[in-house]
Amino acid sequence: MPELIRFGVSLEKDLLERFDKLINEKGYNSRSEALRDLIRENLVKKEWIAGKEVAGAIILVYNHHKRELTNRLTDIQHHYQKLIISTQHIHLDHDNCLEIIAVRGRPKNAYKLLDALKAEKGVKHAALSSSSTGKEIS
Amino acid sequence: MPELIRFGVSLEKDLLERFDKLINEKGYNSRSEALRDLIRENLVKKEWIAGKEVAGAIILVYNHHKRELTNRLTDIQHHYQKLIISTQHIHLDHDNCLEIIAVRGRPKNAYKLLDALKAEKGVKHAALSSSSTGKEIS
Amino acid sequence: MPELIRFGVSLEKDLLERFDKLINEKGYNSRSEALRDLIRENLVKKEWIAGKEVAGAIILVYNHHKRELTNRLTDIQHHYQKLIISTQHIHLDHDNCLEIIAVRGRPKNAYKLLDALKAEKGVKHAALSSSSTGKEIS
Amino acid sequence: MPELIRFGVSLEKDLLERFDKLINEKGYNSRSEALRDLIRENLVKKEWIAGKEVAGAIILVYNHHKRELTNRLTDIQHHYQKLIISTQHIHLDHDNCLEIIAVRGRPKNAYKLLDALKAEKGVKHAALSSSSTGKEIS
Repeated sequence: MPELIRFGVSLEKDLLERFDKLINEKGYNSRSEALRDLIRENLVKKEWIAGKEVAGAIILVYNHHKRELTNRLTDIQHHYQKLIISTQHIHLDHDNCLEIIAVRGRPKNAYKLLDALKAEKGVKHAALSSSSTGKEIS
Repeated sequence: MPELIRFGVSLEKDLLERFDKLINEKGYNSRSEALRDLIRENLVKKEWIAGKEVAGAIILVYNHHKRELTNRLTDIQHHYQKLIISTQHIHLDHDNCLEIIAVRGRPKNAYKLLDALKAEKGVKHAALSSSSTGKEIS
Repeated sequence: MPELIRFGVSLEKDLLERFDKLINEKGYNSRSEALRDLIRENLVKKEWIAGKEVAGAIILVYNHHKRELTNRLTDIQHHYQKLIISTQHIHLDHDNCLEIIAVRGRPKNAYKLLDALKAEKGVKHAALSSSSTGKEIS
Repeated sequence: MPELIRFGVSLEKDLLERFDKLINEKGYNSRSEALRDLIRENLVKKEWIAGKEVAGAIILVYNHHKRELTNRLTDIQHHYQKLIISTQHIHLDHDNCLEIIAVRGRPKNAYKLLDALKAEKGVKHAALSSSSTGKEIS
């Protein structure tokens, strides 16, 4: 159980009312929890800028009927096997696949893998979602 | 095999040289493939603004030792079961879990699910990655 | 002088230490001021989603030697004169101009103006920066 | 007049039709002009990552009745006078000011100025819009 520290925050009455409305709409139970989330989002951004170990996901949409594409995507993923934790594959319809690759490592390697996958013919969309290993964030 | 259409594009010499350098760095085999990707990214953005059916992934980092958190996250996911395709779970370390939820449906529902998960105490980071069902993108 | 309200926030010791480090790096004098900024950023986002009155700036880089471009950009701006507050013009070098158009109105009109300017031949870059009229934010 | 180079691009029929629809909505006169814009946006991103000379704008909303704020903001701007080209000031209403600072220099200095301004009490919103000096973009 992590130690909690309590401290006082001063906010303009009007700003506080708008904040309370916003967190209520988003379903938070307390101001503390909402503020924690805002802080954590900033810390995750900082981790990606700092360039040390991060976690994230690459999301990929492609047409598996494209000749040899599945093989090429697998080859690329094996080349980055130290970065990749695991891959989730979803058959969206007869043609389209959604593949989500969980990654952990340095941001620049995650971007390289993204570029390599995106450059393959038949990949319709590829994006990287930045998250954290959680280690540095309580 | 989709029908390919060939058309001419005019570019300033200097701009073309910089573009060629950029796509070479990113590993593209041809200008056509790089331009297709730029076009597709714009079409995916348009799908999310239009508010119709999209696909995407919610990435979640949390401490599974937080009392009842795993149960609460499962409850929320069941509430959105029509939206959720499948979930990938990764044990990052003794405390931290990475969960990636593949979703398909309307953007506003994906955002609602994101808000509901994010508002849970113990969730350290949550983000939504926007992608496509691929149907409207060749 | 707006009324200030003081309330308590609970944060994990470790998270608080990281937050203190972050706000120190960014030059904040107090946690309250840093938290206010995080809250306000969320409120500004909400204003743009809500679609009511916002303020912002369109930044434009173009080559003024391009035939008739200056006239066409002026024509477009006059067409949106209700949206535009004022325009700042900077001569970057012999060829390039930086123009910054302060706007106030509905987000969708700001995007329309952005699209109209961007579509002109000779405009090298155009982007919209979202801000607020400040009315709803103390 | 820059030299234009013409080359062929192959696109899937369906993708081309959607692209034509998109650029028509956005008001482009030709595919070439729309593709140029997509390319240029990527080049501007690259300039900001490369960290060399860029141009941009910092947009600022603040309450000028806040004691000493105007003086402090001016002091900060003078400290960054090499970065700042010029400043545009708009009286939004009785209390609120919109200030847009055109900047030119290294991205990291632009971010430092943004942080310094944002950290001042009474500043309601501050954002940096990334653009280009246009030199490297035809």
